[in-house]
Amino acid sequence: MQDSSSIGIVTPQVAHFSTPLKLKSGAVIESYDLVYETYGTLNADKSNAILICHALSGNHHVAGYYTEHDKAPGWWDNMIGPGKPIDTDQFFVIGVNNLGGCHGSTGPASINPKTGKPFGASFPVVTVEDWVNSHALLADQLGIFQFAAVVGGSLGGMQALQWTLAFPDRVSNALVIAAAPNLTAQNIAFNDVARQAILTDPDFHGGDFYAHDVKPKRGLRLARMLGHITYLSGDVMGTKFGRLLRSGIFNYGFDVEFEIESYLRYQGDKFAGTFDANTYLLMTKALDYFDPTHHHQNGSLSDALKPATANFLVVSFTTDWRFAPERSREIVQALLDNERNVSYAEITSSHGHDAFLIVDPYYHDLVHAYMNNISLGAAK
Amino acid sequence: MQDSSSIGIVTPQVAHFSTPLKLKSGAVIESYDLVYETYGTLNADKSNAILICHALSGNHHVAGYYTEHDKAPGWWDNMIGPGKPIDTDQFFVIGVNNLGGCHGSTGPASINPKTGKPFGASFPVVTVEDWVNSHALLADQLGIFQFAAVVGGSLGGMQALQWTLAFPDRVSNALVIAAAPNLTAQNIAFNDVARQAILTDPDFHGGDFYAHDVKPKRGLRLARMLGHITYLSGDVMGTKFGRLLRSGIFNYGFDVEFEIESYLRYQGDKFAGTFDANTYLLMTKALDYFDPTHHHQNGSLSDALKPATANFLVVSFTTDWRFAPERSREIVQALLDNERNVSYAEITSSHGHDAFLIVDPYYHDLVHAYMNNISLGAAK
Repeated sequence: MQDSSSIGIVTPQVAHFSTPLKLKSGAVIESYDLVYETYGTLNADKSNAILICHALSGNHHVAGYYTEHDKAPGWWDNMIGPGKPIDTDQFFVIGVNNLGGCHGSTGPASINPKTGKPFGASFPVVTVEDWVNSHALLADQLGIFQFAAVVGGSLGGMQALQWTLAFPDRVSNALVIAAAPNLTAQNIAFNDVARQAILTDPDFHGGDFYAHDVKPKRGLRLARMLGHITYLSGDVMGTKFGRLLRSGIFNYGFDVEFEIESYLRYQGDKFAGTFDANTYLLMTKALDYFDPTHHHQNGSLSDALKPATANFLVVSFTTDWRFAPERSREIVQALLDNERNVSYAEITSSHGHDAFLIVDPYYHDLVHAYMNNISLGAAK
Repeated sequence: MQDSSSIGIVTPQVAHFSTPLKLKSGAVIESYDLVYETYGTLNADKSNAILICHALSGNHHVAGYYTEHDKAPGWWDNMIGPGKPIDTDQFFVIGVNNLGGCHGSTGPASINPKTGKPFGASFPVVTVEDWVNSHALLADQLGIFQFAAVVGGSLGGMQALQWTLAFPDRVSNALVIAAAPNLTAQNIAFNDVARQAILTDPDFHGGDFYAHDVKPKRGLRLARMLGHITYLSGDVMGTKFGRLLRSGIFNYGFDVEFEIESYLRYQGDKFAGTFDANTYLLMTKALDYFDPTHHHQNGSLSDALKPATANFLVVSFTTDWRFAPERSREIVQALLDNERNVSYAEITSSHGHDAFLIVDPYYHDLVHAYMNNISLGAAK
């Protein structure tokens, strides 16, 4: 723990749910756990709660450290903490690991109580809608009716948006960052290559690799390498790596030649050693399926977002080609069509999709100002 | 054979080379074959020869049909034939399969005369420079000193560019289409994911899969799926596939849900059944290594292109994000810095990188006009 501005030592908690949860697919999860963390103090009228929704590889460990010796804090520690844009001196912040995850909430690697074995391939497909429903049940358990804000980037932004549609009276503000109303064909295509890498890895064993004491690391490694390309902008890759050679000369072989290869393989190996392949599959599927316009005539996003009554802050980043600014502008336009209260910022950044996780003074000041405004509103 | 405007039935020929070829890597190929096709008639002073250089998955079968019953012609039949932009009534056109290929020229699947077994992993890394050198030797065999034009798209465009650097007096015109002076970090990154998919496929057997009577189809399939995403623009994927579902409804499983998945998997399967995985690796490596600026101070492309004396037609396509128009403009600027004769066109197209293979009236008229100008020049 090296950052004195951090919230400090945090401890995850587990909420158990024994009422069966019916999923969008029709499948039912009989009982499940959600692991979560909280930072700050819930005020007396329980009006200062903030829910942080995580993206593909994220989890409930949003801020702070688990021990004094932890090298890295939670994944959004630069955004959340005392005096930070989402200020834990003002707000009670909740991070939760999504159902289907691999960091403590019930997921494919969890033991199925019916069989005494890991769920594996039998774990059902979960959707953004299912996550939001389950997070609402967690809020019930915590006695929180309305969130001051639901906040998320990327797939997390989709969850924030879905909150405003499923539970309009339970969310005052939605911060939808580096997100999109649904995936494009190109987005789905990248996801499918990643999935096929995992599904066709001989160590995947149809999703039941746990019983074989192996992991489909080859596939998961490729999926992560590919993902990383889409998280970064071409510009930042060029600036950071360019055509830089590992050994300064061409070796005319298949070992690492260029630094970018070294970086990607390292990221892939690291991820494949720790993340669950079934969870990765589920997360990409949730991305693919999310589409509020799906049952609306002509796929009208304006019609789809009619139920949302929250105030919105929508943020995009200029070099994000995974969820490009024009996708955020679609959300903004649809909200304006419904005369909703929406602020929009397109942040100039070279960092691509990853920009939402990176410190940028303008971006952080913006979120800080928006959040301050919420707290003033709540104080009225 | 359905297209009466085609050159018609064509027959490949084989040129054998028994003088060892020293490669850029330092390795030597003792003897080798190059398979090629020719269309049209070489004129008396041998001044009307055109060399077509192929890209990653291309080959020598550029135009025409092999039999009356062939369903598809050569890969650039829309560009090359009687009355077409590269007019076989005027020009003698040569298509050649690159060394390391898998369509007849000596490559990893060929039998190594020293061992009586396929080269496999022992086949050396070949570069754009090596290809151009070997094509010059083919030109020698055919008695052609100077090409009226060397033409190529993508990796083929890099070969056309290299011709003007290695043999400035042997090429009058270079048509460098949808190409780049070198790969970006992002380009290399995509190539490396594709290579890792192949290299880590358990059926790859270190490149010597031929002896095991298997093919690393899983890896090659992933490589091709990924490649296809980068050949198409996001726009054309959106228009052609969008979020179209295969069965009209969500099935919440890992079979094909979206049409884009069906398309990609089909393309991947088709390719993996026919193409050689080692050749794929070599082609991506040739792309990575090509960089005329490599040994020039400050990586100056202007300095690097000084030796080129040919006239140039450089063409790019607006939605090509694999080799974006700005990469073509770098080539143009470097040629202008050297006061070379260069025409540049940036074609408005929705088809991404693949646009160079697709009929577009403006693009084809442009190439036709440029080529007509060459033939007039030759007639002087």
